[in-house]
Amino acid sequence: MTSNHQADIGVGIIGCGYWGPNLIRNFNRHPRCRVERVADMRRERAEAVAREFHVPAANDDPGSVIDDPRVRLVVIATPAASHYQLAKRALLAGKHVLVMKPFTTSAEHAEELIALAERNGLVCAVDHTFVYTGAVQKMYDTLHDGSMGDLFYIDSVRINLGLFQSDVNVIWDLAPHDLSIIDYLLDGQDPVSVHCLGATHAGGSQENIAYLTVTYPGNVLAHVHVNWLAPAKVRRTIVGGSQRMIVYDDVEPSEKVRIYDRGVSIAKEASPGEIYQQFVSYRQGDMLVPQLSGREALAVEVEHLVDCIHNGKTPRSDGRAGLRVVRILEAAQHQLNSLRELQHAGLTTLRGAA
Amino acid sequence: MTSNHQADIGVGIIGCGYWGPNLIRNFNRHPRCRVERVADMRRERAEAVAREFHVPAANDDPGSVIDDPRVRLVVIATPAASHYQLAKRALLAGKHVLVMKPFTTSAEHAEELIALAERNGLVCAVDHTFVYTGAVQKMYDTLHDGSMGDLFYIDSVRINLGLFQSDVNVIWDLAPHDLSIIDYLLDGQDPVSVHCLGATHAGGSQENIAYLTVTYPGNVLAHVHVNWLAPAKVRRTIVGGSQRMIVYDDVEPSEKVRIYDRGVSIAKEASPGEIYQQFVSYRQGDMLVPQLSGREALAVEVEHLVDCIHNGKTPRSDGRAGLRVVRILEAAQHQLNSLRELQHAGLTTLRGAA
Amino acid sequence: MTSNHQADIGVGIIGCGYWGPNLIRNFNRHPRCRVERVADMRRERAEAVAREFHVPAANDDPGSVIDDPRVRLVVIATPAASHYQLAKRALLAGKHVLVMKPFTTSAEHAEELIALAERNGLVCAVDHTFVYTGAVQKMYDTLHDGSMGDLFYIDSVRINLGLFQSDVNVIWDLAPHDLSIIDYLLDGQDPVSVHCLGATHAGGSQENIAYLTVTYPGNVLAHVHVNWLAPAKVRRTIVGGSQRMIVYDDVEPSEKVRIYDRGVSIAKEASPGEIYQQFVSYRQGDMLVPQLSGREALAVEVEHLVDCIHNGKTPRSDGRAGLRVVRILEAAQHQLNSLRELQHAGLTTLRGAA
Amino acid sequence: MTSNHQADIGVGIIGCGYWGPNLIRNFNRHPRCRVERVADMRRERAEAVAREFHVPAANDDPGSVIDDPRVRLVVIATPAASHYQLAKRALLAGKHVLVMKPFTTSAEHAEELIALAERNGLVCAVDHTFVYTGAVQKMYDTLHDGSMGDLFYIDSVRINLGLFQSDVNVIWDLAPHDLSIIDYLLDGQDPVSVHCLGATHAGGSQENIAYLTVTYPGNVLAHVHVNWLAPAKVRRTIVGGSQRMIVYDDVEPSEKVRIYDRGVSIAKEASPGEIYQQFVSYRQGDMLVPQLSGREALAVEVEHLVDCIHNGKTPRSDGRAGLRVVRILEAAQHQLNSLRELQHAGLTTLRGAA
Repeated sequence: MTSNHQADIGVGIIGCGYWGPNLIRNFNRHPRCRVERVADMRRERAEAVAREFHVPAANDDPGSVIDDPRVRLVVIATPAASHYQLAKRALLAGKHVLVMKPFTTSAEHAEELIALAERNGLVCAVDHTFVYTGAVQKMYDTLHDGSMGDLFYIDSVRINLGLFQSDVNVIWDLAPHDLSIIDYLLDGQDPVSVHCLGATHAGGSQENIAYLTVTYPGNVLAHVHVNWLAPAKVRRTIVGGSQRMIVYDDVEPSEKVRIYDRGVSIAKEASPGEIYQQFVSYRQGDMLVPQLSGREALAVEVEHLVDCIHNGKTPRSDGRAGLRVVRILEAAQHQLNSLRELQHAGLTTLRGAA
Repeated sequence: MTSNHQADIGVGIIGCGYWGPNLIRNFNRHPRCRVERVADMRRERAEAVAREFHVPAANDDPGSVIDDPRVRLVVIATPAASHYQLAKRALLAGKHVLVMKPFTTSAEHAEELIALAERNGLVCAVDHTFVYTGAVQKMYDTLHDGSMGDLFYIDSVRINLGLFQSDVNVIWDLAPHDLSIIDYLLDGQDPVSVHCLGATHAGGSQENIAYLTVTYPGNVLAHVHVNWLAPAKVRRTIVGGSQRMIVYDDVEPSEKVRIYDRGVSIAKEASPGEIYQQFVSYRQGDMLVPQLSGREALAVEVEHLVDCIHNGKTPRSDGRAGLRVVRILEAAQHQLNSLRELQHAGLTTLRGAA
Repeated sequence: MTSNHQADIGVGIIGCGYWGPNLIRNFNRHPRCRVERVADMRRERAEAVAREFHVPAANDDPGSVIDDPRVRLVVIATPAASHYQLAKRALLAGKHVLVMKPFTTSAEHAEELIALAERNGLVCAVDHTFVYTGAVQKMYDTLHDGSMGDLFYIDSVRINLGLFQSDVNVIWDLAPHDLSIIDYLLDGQDPVSVHCLGATHAGGSQENIAYLTVTYPGNVLAHVHVNWLAPAKVRRTIVGGSQRMIVYDDVEPSEKVRIYDRGVSIAKEASPGEIYQQFVSYRQGDMLVPQLSGREALAVEVEHLVDCIHNGKTPRSDGRAGLRVVRILEAAQHQLNSLRELQHAGLTTLRGAA
Repeated sequence: MTSNHQADIGVGIIGCGYWGPNLIRNFNRHPRCRVERVADMRRERAEAVAREFHVPAANDDPGSVIDDPRVRLVVIATPAASHYQLAKRALLAGKHVLVMKPFTTSAEHAEELIALAERNGLVCAVDHTFVYTGAVQKMYDTLHDGSMGDLFYIDSVRINLGLFQSDVNVIWDLAPHDLSIIDYLLDGQDPVSVHCLGATHAGGSQENIAYLTVTYPGNVLAHVHVNWLAPAKVRRTIVGGSQRMIVYDDVEPSEKVRIYDRGVSIAKEASPGEIYQQFVSYRQGDMLVPQLSGREALAVEVEHLVDCIHNGKTPRSDGRAGLRVVRILEAAQHQLNSLRELQHAGLTTLRGAA
């Protein structure tokens, strides 16, 4: 298709963990990209991955990736705490960046990176992978074609017997997926409020279960349940509208999105005896499981990113999307911290206490 | 079996709605009970039910049920707002009472009824039906035989395209089920804190979606999601422990309880370079779906109640259990009210705002 | 609606087993029907049912039902072996009949009853309940609106840890459901061939598992798996067409019918090297779960039957439908008998025998 | 573990289709194996695979694989029609062989290969991958520890909207999986009889749906439904015993095996009136979902094969297992051919013909 083009985007990847091979594979499959160099703190890991996936150069020095003249796009797949420093250095070196989620560990850092990229005319993208899936795209289209009526709520559950992590808690680990989906569905709207509760169990030092509630203008309620200690894997998002409702079950192998032609409306009418009587009418129609694009989300994302780099477009999951997600996480973390302090002080939280 | 006993407990039922026929059927099946009289505001409804289920007397006067000398037990199956007045009158008339959930609409009323019943040596029970199911009994036994290790959390979802009600919101309608299950599993422990958020959609006047978080001593987190506007019926409670975890799915026709032999433990050890390193060990064992008693919960409840009346025992779901549930609902309602006021005042909630 | 009509169809029911109360309830709910009399070999059973469901008369004499002058329609809900004698006697007495499945235990008997009913201008219906469900109706409509393309096969599985019966084997017990659905979907077409294999286990005297294959003109293959010894309940029928396919899962509480917009077509083209190469093209489109009528099948059937009696119409599940099902069962039984004889004679069936 | 050993088994692979990369990956991961050479009719395919997976040599000549002196084990992953010639040539060249399923296209060929391997002291294995899965191993262990009581039946369904093939029909394509599982569970027992029915649709030249019934001594009934034209993927095997029953659902991501503590027993006792009355007692106990080994089946198989080559053991899926499966397929094919002839001759098979 684009075989008349040269592979003109050299890609460098910093961090060769679980996601690294997927990144290499998808960039190398794109006709205009070529992974030139990888780095990982564990040098032997970088070298093994480079050997297996035919990457020309590998070592343990992130700087060598950023400074490699063949590299135009730096992919930052390290732990979250290092995203800011590495992305900043790459942007200062005039490179486009793709940063894994969460974008940064503070909104301030995110804002600085966005400004830097804009000043230098560089693409700054965040790997909100889910927004490139066929499932989320179908949800977006259904929500925005008007057939769902008013949006009421988004309820998202992402639980599993997961990989406990020592450096971040469960909201920084899992909630970016849900929050980036919600952010995309809501066209990047700013939230009205954020509430968060969580708990730390099993001798860990980080919350392993948390409930995050985000309200949006127009009385839209978003709720995210993330949990590393659940017996079975659940990844389910319900989008409730007045005319239609969607259930997105990412654990389903093929039938991920179910669109229910169901809704409710309430008409108030005066009636003698009682001042108002509610007339509720339910609509129970068909349910549709749309055929979804089977393309790998990361391949879609790479193609989109290449398009943005070539044509100066703004990525669907740009730094600003990353920032909006980080802002919510930061607000939630603030509340979890207060909760921890109260508990350490031996105080029960009194809010709402019976 | 007990056919040598006379039916010595005359039962009177006030309120012949959806649950009425179930109550009559189950009381009449017990050899020592006999439903003598029913009443309903809609007299023709009371008479039709009486005819169909062979109840000797029926009218539209609750007083006639309470005052009928053949009636020893008054079952109050009217809307929640009238529970207190009717139960009080029955207790004052020296009758045992069984009150549908929620017990009352205020903790103060509940306390008064409990005191009245105790003073008069009468049974005051609340119809927390779920605590009499084979599923919840199995959960209780599993939690209390020590094999689950430490209890971490209980997460309960009860959502459906439900019957919108004009007099109560979704937490008073649905959450009593979840809260009574949690209360039973935790042996009636008092909560440390209650948090609640909700929203009112579709032109209704009552919250149709709400998230309720209740914390208990020992860092136990309970969370309840109730929703009248969900496209599909979900009734699922997860109980997470350090050694085993339970998923109770009440929508499953036969395999309602799944006990997972799974857990996690974290050992902290000093390591050079980092002060603490987390060693997390997961256990992934078999999953068991226990055979459950197939007896109708209401039949178990009736038998238990008869035993309590005859032998002066305290019902599993007594007034105090009802009170504990009402206290949580009241605290939650308090927060929903504050939220409504903020919104009506055009103020955004600031807590945790980004 | 038809409240200006009198209840002019007196109904008598012979056999008060599991299905009896459902029959009484549904006939009595129809404004033009009234159950006047029931009978059961176990007189006390008949009397108890009559008392509970307000039937005026009950005893242990089938003749009293048939001869009751108020009875215009005789419902025969006894074991299959007695259907013929009772239905014959009722038809000779000038009564319409509704016979439970299987219609009779031999095609000869079925033919005689059909002839008798026609001669006397009486309705002779068979209780093929499933053909009155919303699910089967939707399948019929989908198959007959042309959108499925060519019909290829119908595969039906009806298995459970079932009620072993001593008088009939599993094909006479369960397969009438599947065969009546298939017969209805195929507009009563005559089969081309019938094949059946089964086995008798656990010390029983009747086959408890059987596989029944019925071929129809146009290369349509129907297959039925019935089994009393399965660990879990499966009731699933797949209808495969060239353009669309249906999965009907009767165990699903609400989403019983799934219509897949999927198919395959094969184009043959000459190619050098190989004489023919197959070009197969698959179509994978959306899947639709249609909203189904929630009416109880038996209520639909009663209404239909009343219409047939009043207006001289032929029931959807008339004697001829019953006969077609019995013919298949008889042919299948013939093969099971041959198989039994071979086994009793110590002969193994030849490997690969047709 | 075996790192002190050299990689002393050179492996050559003929055929680089879908399964090829899996074979290379798994052999190369074993410390004592090394894939030295691959071949494929499509030379560029062989070269691309070799490049991606670091195989030293590749071309389009199967002979070059067989004759390569570094190759001790030849893996034959070509279409079934060529298995016999290639395996024969490899065995004659003194090489061990692993042949994909089905082993051969005729029992005669299979017998010849077995004899040849035995004469030359070579391992001749067939890739019955499923018998190396944790799921099938658990089923085998459960069936053979005596807790299931008597085995009654095995019912296997393997259907999908599958890949139509022009050279083989659906039984040769899919049924080897089911038949090899059944053969393993039954310890290689010879069947008593084989029956098969099928149909060819959508303009294809090969059966795309078939039902295969195999009976075994002791009244054991095995049934296999294979289908390329089903709307959804089902891969489910039920094993029914008198004391316990297993459902193996290979589509389930994690809970593949369910062991039901359920059964039935029938006691016959004389009773007045009827000569024998059946007393059936059901047992409905718990259901267990055992934790299964998560190792990739092919890795287990490779390890087992290496052990057999080094220690002169007989593989679990040896040529004789392959032969037993081919014998059943051959008998089934014979019946499908008779059926086709009858249809081409315009003859209907007689209704009820055995």
